[in-house]
Formats: sequence, structure tokens, C-alpha cells
Amino acid sequence: METMKRTTNCGALRRADEGKTVILNGWVHRKRDHGGISFINLRDRYGITQVVVDSDAPAELAALIAELRNEFCIALEGTVRSRPDSMVNPEMATGEIEVVAKKLVILNRSEVLPFQIDEESEVKEELRLTYRYLDLRSAGMQRRIKLRNEVSFAVREWMIGQGFYEIETPTFIKSTPEGARDYLVPSRLYPGKFYALPQSPQLYKQILMVAGFDKYFQIARCYRDEDARGDRQPEFTQIDIEMSFVNRDDILSMTEGLMGHIFKKTLGQELPPRFKRLSYEEAMERYGSDKPDLRFDMPMQDFGPYVAEGSFQAFKDALAAGEADKAAAAARGISLAGGGVKVLVVPGKADYSRKQIEELEAQAKIYRAKGLAWMKVAGTETESILEGGIAKFFGDRAQKITAGLGAKPGDLLLLVADSQRKIANVALGSVRSKLGRDLGLNGPGPDGVPRFEFAWIVDFPLFEFNDQENRWEAAHHMFSWPQDKYHATLEQDPGSVKGDLYDLVLNGYELASGSIRIHDSELQKRIFKIVGLDPLEAEQKFGFLTEAFKYGAPPHGGIAPGLDRLVMLMAGETSIKEVIAFPKNSFAVSPMDDCPGEVDQKQLDELHLAVVLPPRTE
Amino acid sequence: METMKRTTNCGALRRADEGKTVILNGWVHRKRDHGGISFINLRDRYGITQVVVDSDAPAELAALIAELRNEFCIALEGTVRSRPDSMVNPEMATGEIEVVAKKLVILNRSEVLPFQIDEESEVKEELRLTYRYLDLRSAGMQRRIKLRNEVSFAVREWMIGQGFYEIETPTFIKSTPEGARDYLVPSRLYPGKFYALPQSPQLYKQILMVAGFDKYFQIARCYRDEDARGDRQPEFTQIDIEMSFVNRDDILSMTEGLMGHIFKKTLGQELPPRFKRLSYEEAMERYGSDKPDLRFDMPMQDFGPYVAEGSFQAFKDALAAGEADKAAAAARGISLAGGGVKVLVVPGKADYSRKQIEELEAQAKIYRAKGLAWMKVAGTETESILEGGIAKFFGDRAQKITAGLGAKPGDLLLLVADSQRKIANVALGSVRSKLGRDLGLNGPGPDGVPRFEFAWIVDFPLFEFNDQENRWEAAHHMFSWPQDKYHATLEQDPGSVKGDLYDLVLNGYELASGSIRIHDSELQKRIFKIVGLDPLEAEQKFGFLTEAFKYGAPPHGGIAPGLDRLVMLMAGETSIKEVIAFPKNSFAVSPMDDCPGEVDQKQLDELHLAVVLPPRTE
Repeated sequence: METMKRTTNCGALRRADEGKTVILNGWVHRKRDHGGISFINLRDRYGITQVVVDSDAPAELAALIAELRNEFCIALEGTVRSRPDSMVNPEMATGEIEVVAKKLVILNRSEVLPFQIDEESEVKEELRLTYRYLDLRSAGMQRRIKLRNEVSFAVREWMIGQGFYEIETPTFIKSTPEGARDYLVPSRLYPGKFYALPQSPQLYKQILMVAGFDKYFQIARCYRDEDARGDRQPEFTQIDIEMSFVNRDDILSMTEGLMGHIFKKTLGQELPPRFKRLSYEEAMERYGSDKPDLRFDMPMQDFGPYVAEGSFQAFKDALAAGEADKAAAAARGISLAGGGVKVLVVPGKADYSRKQIEELEAQAKIYRAKGLAWMKVAGTETESILEGGIAKFFGDRAQKITAGLGAKPGDLLLLVADSQRKIANVALGSVRSKLGRDLGLNGPGPDGVPRFEFAWIVDFPLFEFNDQENRWEAAHHMFSWPQDKYHATLEQDPGSVKGDLYDLVLNGYELASGSIRIHDSELQKRIFKIVGLDPLEAEQKFGFLTEAFKYGAPPHGGIAPGLDRLVMLMAGETSIKEVIAFPKNSFAVSPMDDCPGEVDQKQLDELHLAVVLPPRTE
Repeated sequence: METMKRTTNCGALRRADEGKTVILNGWVHRKRDHGGISFINLRDRYGITQVVVDSDAPAELAALIAELRNEFCIALEGTVRSRPDSMVNPEMATGEIEVVAKKLVILNRSEVLPFQIDEESEVKEELRLTYRYLDLRSAGMQRRIKLRNEVSFAVREWMIGQGFYEIETPTFIKSTPEGARDYLVPSRLYPGKFYALPQSPQLYKQILMVAGFDKYFQIARCYRDEDARGDRQPEFTQIDIEMSFVNRDDILSMTEGLMGHIFKKTLGQELPPRFKRLSYEEAMERYGSDKPDLRFDMPMQDFGPYVAEGSFQAFKDALAAGEADKAAAAARGISLAGGGVKVLVVPGKADYSRKQIEELEAQAKIYRAKGLAWMKVAGTETESILEGGIAKFFGDRAQKITAGLGAKPGDLLLLVADSQRKIANVALGSVRSKLGRDLGLNGPGPDGVPRFEFAWIVDFPLFEFNDQENRWEAAHHMFSWPQDKYHATLEQDPGSVKGDLYDLVLNGYELASGSIRIHDSELQKRIFKIVGLDPLEAEQKFGFLTEAFKYGAPPHGGIAPGLDRLVMLMAGETSIKEVIAFPKNSFAVSPMDDCPGEVDQKQLDELHLAVVLPPRTE
């Protein structure tokens, strides 16, 4: 191979370089001929430089130029010259100059491309993933992978600066019953035994606190064998963090500092030094979600106080049924919230058509609402009128209701009632989210800069009652610290217990989850017991953690922001596949290398395994 | 839990803090009572502070103090006071002060320890790994995990500064036939199909070059299912690096810059800006190893020229047999090196006893030497005499031989002859290594500072002949670039072909391996053919790489230093387990969490697998 090593890159040359002889290496991005002159846009990671082959170029060079097609990889020697003012391209960093070609070596040819580079949005995902090496050449993928790299480094820079150690935890661990399904790795040396891949380094980071490392982090690969759904990947990356001798607020402010550094360093955006904090209950009551998009407010309100004054029987029935369920549950020692009627005031949307409202109702029904009631506000600010929908049941209370809700003439009221308050909240909350998207309330600010609205959700319930299995289960996971005031009465009313858990929410996505952990073996055993985990099984599965806690475990807690999702949101994308170099498709398959795939029988034999194919269904 | 959050840590207080009231959190490292006064050494990650409980302490405090045992985790409030000059401990950073205890909270008790912290060297490895959370509390493990963290960050800091992107490659890939055994992960969604875990990100980093990322690195976890042997771990970490548009020397100087930064930043040691370079052949001829320990020289020399002049038939026979084999192989188109007689001059060790020499011979025999011949140099520098061993066969040539070898009176000559030159080299090379250890030639410098002797081994042969299978195979791997001058004649004499491969060697360990890769599909196919990889199989297994190379792949190359081994050597350790937080034992088992372990039948069913236990042997 004739070597013509680059002396500079395709993004570096400026007018000041005029007259220099340079060698560039890169790819033919575009080539066009114009009156006997060839123009080649030569591309590498650093930029694009225009190369000109004059009409009087030597025959040998001209012949090579004629061969060039898009994405040929070439080495090119030439002289830098300024473009005439009229030809300067202000959109290219190198737009003031061009390179007059003198010599060319074709380093590698390219076959006809399955799609043009930089047309990613036009190309089907499956094709993009099959030819990921071409897809990754696009400006968008190059920019996003670069951003991911910058975010990862900003994380490390800040964490190390704060005295954290990055410590690698094992990928081969013991299978535990916690959370989703484990991916397993059969052991060849121990027939019938398996390693599991970690769903997160949870137990190991707690062990590191027991070991006295005080401040740990790791950008860690995690694995969950879940059914293909939405944007899930078999493997994903989280910024795993744990600290000793801290309380909840220490973790929160550390995370605020980390996010502030990342956004400042990579996007040049200032975040507020402290993020909003909402209790789980507040978030559910106001936004019907524990991950509300706060780029707009438009909160839900309680319509309950007006129900008795009106004459709409369905609302009254929902509340009465809720009260009955609550009383029945109370008799079994379980606290329920009762029923609820929630209302959303949509400013200025009294002009919504019946069809538009029906679309919103369909959204509400996905989340188990029985229907979406509505009224429109008319009249004046001091003498409002309710019209349409269920207005007739509340007509004589219009002014009181609109004043109470802060609704103005021209506003649309949307209502959901249910005997389970949570259903009313979640269903109407999903209507709020849809409206946010439909009305563009979640777009960039007036200056066109994307908005990043962080919030903390705190005070989560520690336990949820599983109706099907008729038992309490951990709402989050079993190692979270019940807030101190509930310790005495844990077993008496598990449903009321709040934990020191917290979620970090960004633009409607859950970005991070964390908690203060239980460091006390006795308290941990009580939790295991409440969720019905047999002490023997707990010992067998988590034995090494409970064992470790016998030797002076410190109080500790942590959090784990998802790196894929963080970078996705920063890049303004809606799929994590856009920020992963080699993602699997939505069916956990990599079309590029066709994996998962068959393996040799010899490999199975060595692993002491036989495949048991499921019966074929016709 | 009563919270008494620390106001400072156990390594921070100095005489200037006198009089301050502080709260410390940490572990009871040692406790002793002396004349009614209790002294507690309180430890955290940052250091140790002496706490004093005066004899007039309140009864409540005294009672709690009496409860304390080693490794109790406590919070302690007290006042800083200077120690009297006679009590200052210059070996502790906090040795000028002590904290007079006022208040104590026991955060967590500790059971009796299975071993004392900081007695790691006394404790059996299995016990250390079972209670790794206690073992990790030792000063040594704390220091090494900290160093590993610092080395990792120094790597990233330097690579990012040089314009590299850290890009995450997948853990779930397709199983390939290259190298060692793959670990497999059964797919639940696709019965009978498997993901493999990467032995390295090799194919993906090359794909990233095809994708135009130009400079890639990743601190990457790798997996090899090898038989338990020596210091192997199922998973290990490498600093994976790849660059486009570069030649061998670019990779070498980049690596020298990286190592220089790491050593300067973490150990404060200056490395030479360029490392020694030895060809593979030189390394084998001088040191009998492609990873020589160059903390001492003591090279082997060729004794061949003296064989004909002497009368030792065994040497003559070895060379003659070598010549015969060489001629026979040449007739089959295979080049062999012939036989060899190598000699090691051991300065000043003519006093070695027969027993000592027999030990060295045993070492040589491990590497297939038929024996270890010896002679001692006596007489004077101008009239030397050879004595003992095989001296009688060379007696009349003593002066010529010793002058030629640079041997002086008092030196010991050790010799190995074999019809295969490589056996003579390797066997005598292993004697050289043993002597290096026995004589302490590999110790620290005169100033006590550990010495780090780097060297590059270059110009490796590309192919090795596999006698058993009667075919050529890749000496390293199949994607390495044959040096340009051999391209025309690859198939005619594979044995003579040198590749652009390079190893980085440190203190007798292979620290990194790399090569310039083949970016040309046609050349790659020729290599596949020479090693007898069926084109169809190659296409099936590496299809996506050869496919990718059709679209303008750039020239590229890379290297991959092992992080575990690098940190091990920097820490002065001889096992990578000492620099991994949670290693497996030598049998690929983690005694702490007892993995690999059994899994539920349900998990196997979901994975469409049955375990086929091997027949029991009595």
C-alpha cells in the first residue's frame, strides 16, 4: 500500500493556511463535475474540505478522479488556496479555502451504498442497523456518539474531583430473585451451574460501602432479560453511585452538582443549583405521574369538593364506591386512598371539537378511565357559564367552580372520576401529557434552546399491596430505608410507610432512581418478612449481603442515573438507539452481525447443555 | 437512627484545628485502655485519628466505650487537642492531635472478625475472598483499588486530551471461532440461539474505524472461558485502542505517551519518552522470550561458532540434526531455523554449587531442554581456563571462547543445545529469568524506587506452522497486516512473513498486544485461505467485518494494554487478584457470593435448556 499519511485533517484548514502543501485522508462525501473541473467534498471525523481538480490536471490524476465514487477512502495531496469571496461557504468551517489536488491514492474503494450517508431519517431502522458502520458515518450519529463520550468523561471528571473512586464490579455474579429476569451464563467447569449478569451492581456497591470505600461510582453496564417492548435494550449503561455516612439530601445535592457540571461542560447550559422537589403524592395528584414533564405546568385539580353540590350521579357513585372499598380494606388492615374526581383546566381550548375530545378520551381509557367528561367555560370572568358535556349537572355552580379552579372563559375542563383515585390521576395525567405534546408545550424556549426541566420525586411509599398474590411487596426494592418515623409501626400499616427513596425526573422521563439503604440487619430482616421472603431463601439469595452487614456496615445510600437516557434527552432524541453505537433492534437482535445466533454442538456439549426446542405451533 | 453526620474525616485534622468541636464517622481500628483512659484509633478511607476518652468521662459515654470492639462503625463528637510533643506520632498524618470524646453513637456493631484487618498477608486467599468486604478494608487493598481508579482516570484524561472518543461496544455479540472459548448467554426469545460475550471488542473497534471515528478507545471488560490456570480470571479489563490512517510507529509513540502520562500522574515516575525496541527474533535470541524482563540484561549468546572447534559430540549432533530437519522442511516449502547452542555468561557465579546448577537444569528441562551444560571460568583475563562440566571438550580454546563471550574469571557459563533452535533459546531464557529472580537482579533501584523497564517487541512472524494439523495458522490473529514487502509472496513462504504486530513488555510481562489491521478485503481473503479457513465459514463468522470492508475501510491499527496487569505491576504485586475489587478465585468461583450457582428450573425452561450432567466417575 502506498502510504500518504495525512498532514492535517478535513476540518482544520483556514485562509491562513493558503499556499501550504497538505495531505488529507478521508472519504468522498460528494463529488460533482462542473465545466471540466471536479469538486470533491472530502470528509473525516473533523469536518469536510472542498478539493478541486482543475481541468488541466495530469491525465493520471484525472483518471483516478474519474474512478471516485461516494465513500471511497482516499489520500490526497494538494495546495491550499483561498476561495474567491463569492465562493466562500460560511456554513463550513473550512469554507474560506479549497485544496487544489496534485496527487491522489485510492486507499479503499466502496461498493454502491445501500443508502446515502446523512439521510438517516429517511432510512428504515433495520437497514440502518444492518449497515451500522455506514449509518455511524452520518453527521447526526457522529455528533451523538461524540456527545456520549463527552458526557461520560464529564461524569468521571466531576466524580473523581469530588473524591469518588470508580471501582469495577463483576459481570459474573450470582443469580438473584430481585427485579427482572437475569441473563445467565452457563459454567463449563461446573456442570449445571450458572453465573448471572448483573441487572445493576446494587449488592456490590453496598458491599463496597461495607468495605469502607466511602464514595463509589462506576459507569456500569447492566443487563435485563425483559420482553421486547418500546425502547428497551438487553444491555444498558448506568452511572452507578453510592456514598457512606450521608442522608437523602446529600445524595440529592451531589446529583444536582453532577448534572450541573455535565450540562455546563458539554452543552454550555446552566442548570439551576437546586432542582424542584415533589413528593410522590403531590406528583400523582398534580400530574398523574411520578415522572411528570415539567416543561409545562397545567396541573390537575381536585374536583371532589364540587361533586356533592352538583347532580352528576356517576361522580357521586365513583366517590361512594371508593369510600366503600376504603372501609372494606381498612377492615383487613390495608389503607386505600378511596375514589377521586380530577379535573384539568386547558386554557383557551374551549374550541376543541368533539372529535378532538374523543381522541383525548381514548388516551384516558388506555389508562383504565371509564370515560372523559368535559365542560367548556363561556360567559365572562365574573359571570361564567359552563356549556356542553356534563355542564347541565353543574350549571348553577358555574361561577363558584370556575373561580375555584382558576378557569377562564374560553377554557376547556376535562374530568375523570374513578372509585380508585390512582386511576383518575393516572388517566387524566396521561391526557395532560398528550395535550403537552399536541399543543407543543414541551418544545424549546422562545430562544430555540431546548429546555431541560429536572425535578426530584421524593417520599415514595415503601410497599405496594399485590392484590393478585394478596401480599405486600417492595414498591421499589427491598433494601430501601423506611423513613425513621415509621420504624416502630412498619408491620402494622405497611401501606402508609414512606421510604427514603427518590427519583430524578427530566422532561417526563425517569432519569435516575435511588435510595438510602438499610444498613441494619435486623431492620432488613423485618422488611424481608413483610414482603413474604422466607428467611431461609433470603439468607440463601442475599446471604452475603446480610452476612456483610454483621461487621459494622455504615449508613449509606446512592443513586443511578441512566446514561443512555440522559444522553438521549440531551441530544433531543426519543430513542436510546440513537445514542448507542451498536444497539440491538426492538427484538433484541443485532442485524449487523446476526446475533443471537446458533453455536456449535461442541460448545453446548462443553457447557453440559441441551437445547429443548418448544413444540412447533401451526 | 440517631444521625451524627461527620463534620470532617479521619485523615484531615491537624494542630491548626485545635479547640474545634468535630464529629467523626468511621470504624474502630484499635482500642486500648491505659490507666483508666481509653484510646481509640478511628479509621475511615481518609486516615486514622486517635480518639481519647478521659477517665472522668460521663458514665453513659464510658458505658458505650466499654461496648466497643474492633470494626464497630461509630459516630463520635469531640474536641481537637494537640498532643504533647512527646506523644506526637510522625507516622500518622493526624499524629499531632487527638480528639477528646464527648459523645458517641454506635451506628453498627460488628461480630467477631474472621481475621484482623491489615493482616492480609497472613490470611489464606480463600478466606480473604469469602470476606472480601473485610479484606478490602485493609490499607493495602484500599491503596491498590485507589491506584486502579487513578490509573483508569489518567488513561481517560490522556486519551480524551488526544482526541480519542471512548465508545462503548456491545457485550452481547455473535460467537466467533477466534481465540479462546466464548462464554455464551442463551437467548430466551430465540430458542436454541445464543449471544456470546466478547473476548475483546476487536471486530467492533475495527467497525468503528470503518465508521470513521478515527480515534477510539474504551476501558473494556473482556471474557474468556479458559481452564483455570495461574492468574487467569473469567473476566478482565483492557484499555482497548484503535486509530485510523496510522502506521506502526504512530501506535507505538501514542502508547509511549499514554504510559508516560499514567506513570507520571499516579506514581510521579518519569518514563523515557521512547521505549527500547527489539525484533521478535532478537528477543528470542538474546533473552529466549518475547516478554523479556529487561530490569537486567545478561543476554544469551550464540555458542554455535565454537562447537566445531571443540570436541563435544552432543553439541555437534544437535546442530547436525537441526540442519537435517531444516533441509527436510525446506523440501516441503516450510522454513525452519535449524538447531542451536546457546550460552549464558553468569558474572561472578563460578562458585555455584552442583546442587544450584542442578536446580537451574531442572528449570531448563521444564522448557524441553535435554540438559544444561556448564563450565566455570578461572585463570586470568588474558589466560583464562575453563573448568568443570564440559570444559574438557573446549579446554584448548578457553581464551578464545571467553574473550568472544566477554566472560571473565569467576564467571559461570550455562549452555543448552537443541536441534530446534527455539527450544535452546526458550529453555536457556527461562534459566536467565530464574537467575534474575534468584540473584535479585529484578529488584528496585539503589534508591529503593521500583524500576519499570518497558520494551517493544516488533516484527513478529505472521504465521506459525501447526505440526499436528499440518497447516499454517495465524501466530497472533487473522486480521494483522503483513509487512508490505511480503505481500507478493505471502502464499509461497508463509513462515517468513513478518507482520506489523507489536507487543509492549514491562518487567517480563506482556502488557499489551496490537497490530496494524488488514483493511483490504482481498488481502484478508488470502490470509483466511492460508490458515485454511473455508471462505464460506469465514463469510458466515466474520461476514459483517468483510462486508463492512467493502465500503471504503480506512487503513487502521490498534493496541490493547491490559489494565489489571498494568495496575498489578505498578502496585508491585504478582497477582491481578490484588488489584480487582471482587475477583474470582483460581477456579473461577467467587467464595463471597458462591457463584456460579444453581438456578431455578423455571429459568432453564424459559431459556429452552436442559442440563446434561456428565456421568459420575467413581
